[in-house]
Parts: sequence; C-alpha cells; structure tokens
Amino acid sequence: MNYPSKVLERAVEEISHLPGIGKRTALRLVLHMLNRPVSQTENLANALNHLVQDIQYCEKCHTISDAHICQICANPLRDSSVICVVEDVRDVMAIENTGQFKGVYHVLGGRISPMDGIGPGQLQIESLLKRIENESVGELIFALSSTMEGDTTAFYLYKVLKDFNVNFSTIARGIGVGDELEYADEATLVRSIQNRIPYVESTLKG
Amino acid sequence: MNYPSKVLERAVEEISHLPGIGKRTALRLVLHMLNRPVSQTENLANALNHLVQDIQYCEKCHTISDAHICQICANPLRDSSVICVVEDVRDVMAIENTGQFKGVYHVLGGRISPMDGIGPGQLQIESLLKRIENESVGELIFALSSTMEGDTTAFYLYKVLKDFNVNFSTIARGIGVGDELEYADEATLVRSIQNRIPYVESTLKG
Ligand SMILES: [Zn+2]
Ligand SMILES: [Zn+2]
Repeated sequence: MNYPSKVLERAVEEISHLPGIGKRTALRLVLHMLNRPVSQTENLANALNHLVQDIQYCEKCHTISDAHICQICANPLRDSSVICVVEDVRDVMAIENTGQFKGVYHVLGGRISPMDGIGPGQLQIESLLKRIENESVGELIFALSSTMEGDTTAFYLYKVLKDFNVNFSTIARGIGVGDELEYADEATLVRSIQNRIPYVESTLKG
Repeated sequence: MNYPSKVLERAVEEISHLPGIGKRTALRLVLHMLNRPVSQTENLANALNHLVQDIQYCEKCHTISDAHICQICANPLRDSSVICVVEDVRDVMAIENTGQFKGVYHVLGGRISPMDGIGPGQLQIESLLKRIENESVGELIFALSSTMEGDTTAFYLYKVLKDFNVNFSTIARGIGVGDELEYADEATLVRSIQNRIPYVESTLKG
C-alpha cells in the first residue's frame, strides 16, 4: 500500500501493531480521527502515555492499581483469608461486578501454556506461596479458564501448595444460568452431570 | 463496569470512543499494551499526536498530504487534464495501487447523504468548479461508491458542471474480474448487462 503521507502511514502502522487490527481497519480509524476534533485524539494519546507510564500493580495481589496496594487488598471489610486465584485483571473485574465475592484475589498474570512459552516461572506463583506462608489463608479458590491450560495451571498450583493447611476449591463448571441444555457443548454437559449437586442444596442456593 | 484503576479506565474509555471498538475490545487492547515494551505505546501516542497536529490536505485535490500540494498534483508526468473524482483518500490509494491511472484526483471528502446530514456544501464541490474554470480539464471521471448516495453525488456534480466543455465518465460497474456470475448480486448483474461493451473491444482491453 502506498500512502500519500508519511504522517498518515506512521499512524496506520502503529495502530495496526495492535492485535486484531489490520491495515484496513487502522486506516479507517485514522480517517475517523481526522474527522473529529483534534483534542479528542490528543486525549487518547495522553491517556495511552499515562497508562504505560503510571500504571501500577498491587504488591499483594498483582492486580492493576493506582497505588502500591489495591483498593481490594486495602479494604479491611474484605476477608483476606479467602483468596481467589485468577489469570488477569479482567477476571477480577468480572467477579467484582457480581458484588458477591467478599474475599481477596491473586492475579497470576496468565496461565501455564507450553505452546506459548509460558511456564510457572512467568506467573506470580512464588508470591502466592509467600502469601500462604505468611498470611492466615483458609481457602484458595481457583477461578481459572475452563481450558486445558487453565486446568494444568490449577493442578500445578495444587501440587505446589497442597501441603499447606488450606482448603482448595474451584469454581463450578456447568450450564450457564438461563442457557438451554440443547445448546450446551458436550464437555460442559458432561461436567455439569459429573459435578451435579443435591437438588435441595441447589434450590436453597438459587 | 468497575475498573481497579483510573489510569486503566481512562485509556479504555478513550479507545472505546473509536468506531467499532467496544469497552471489551478496548480493555483487551489496553492489556496488550501493558504486556509489551512501554516504548511501543509511546510511539503509538506520538504517531497519533503527530497525525492530528501535522496532517495537511493538498490545496488542489484535497487528498491527505505532507505538503501544501500533494505528490500527485506536483508530479509533472501526471496528466492534469483528467480528474478522477473520489470520496476519500482510501479511494485515491486504491486507484494508485493499480499503477494504471495517470491523471489526477479530486477528493470530495464524502458523498451527499441527507440521512447523515451531508449536503453538497460539506463537500469539496466549489473547488472542483474552480479547477474546471481555471485549469484545462478535458475529462472528469466519477469514481464514486456504487450506492444511492454515490449515484446522487455523481448526478449532482453532473448537473452543476454539465455546461462546461468537459467529458464526463463514470467507472464501470459489473462482475468483478475473477468472480463467478452465479454469485453476483442481481443489481450488479443487471448493470453489467445494461452496460455491456462490444466483445472485440473488451478482448483488446483485457
Ligand atoms: Zn491487591
Ligand atoms: Zn493534490
């Protein structure tokens, strides 16, 4: 593609480095930016600089934070004896959004995936070990992806941590609330039958 | 959605102002930026600032340019008596990419679309009139979208300009080269039959 302007080309080039954005989409975004007030794109550029320069990660749970210790870890009303282990900040946000979980988190920063060259060493596992050694942790909830990598990660953590006096649990897999059975994939259906729970218990919970 | 960080939230917010990018995609892009070298995102931010602050439009043809007059208009080897009228810079790039057109362009900056509140006054029509008055233009090629708006725009331009001593033409609509007839939509098929050309002529051109 020949660009009529280096300034245009460079912007398209930089945007198309983002995942899932090709040259054509990048050019469409750039033309949109040229058709809106300049200040809006300056705000975007400022926000991106601010993001990469000022972002912090909670020293305890490693979630993205504006301070050394995140608002969740710093909140005395949260139950720090229950740690929910997740892959990234999106999982924290999704669970926080439910407003139902009162414990704290530990963000691994991904999952073990030999295919992508991600081993236990790249994840925040050492610091999880330290938390369990030093804090009075009663339960560890694995809230990881329902994939081979997620399962591998949970199993690895369990092996490393099983000698500590901690209860291990994992979030339930099954038919989504409101989903029709016939549309569920086979693996989910199998898991939902294997992990069935007493009816009375489920009614009380529901 | 509750964000664990204002810095994160602001970046997601600004990115999701772009067309076709929702909050979820914006968050994914932001997390990607946090996982790559800081300099790459600084380069992106710089490119965007540079874009909106330094971009210029050719004074003659209104295409995006790094100078007052674009490289095409400034090129003495281009035939300035043939003006190809297009909607935006993407069309210029697409036609330039073929390497076959030796004339020059006139970028309208859109097409007449009452639904979107775009009338002739918002387009670079006045300056096209001036070019035809002042330059020795022999042919005007309408290379506009094959839509109602594109057709309306071409017809409007023709009405405004028809008294000048200029030949008007429009790019051919028809079955794309390499396309199978059975997959063409009906309107295209009808146009391709209506606008049929003598076989010998088409063979010579092909
Ligand atoms: Zn924290
Ligand atoms: Zn020009």
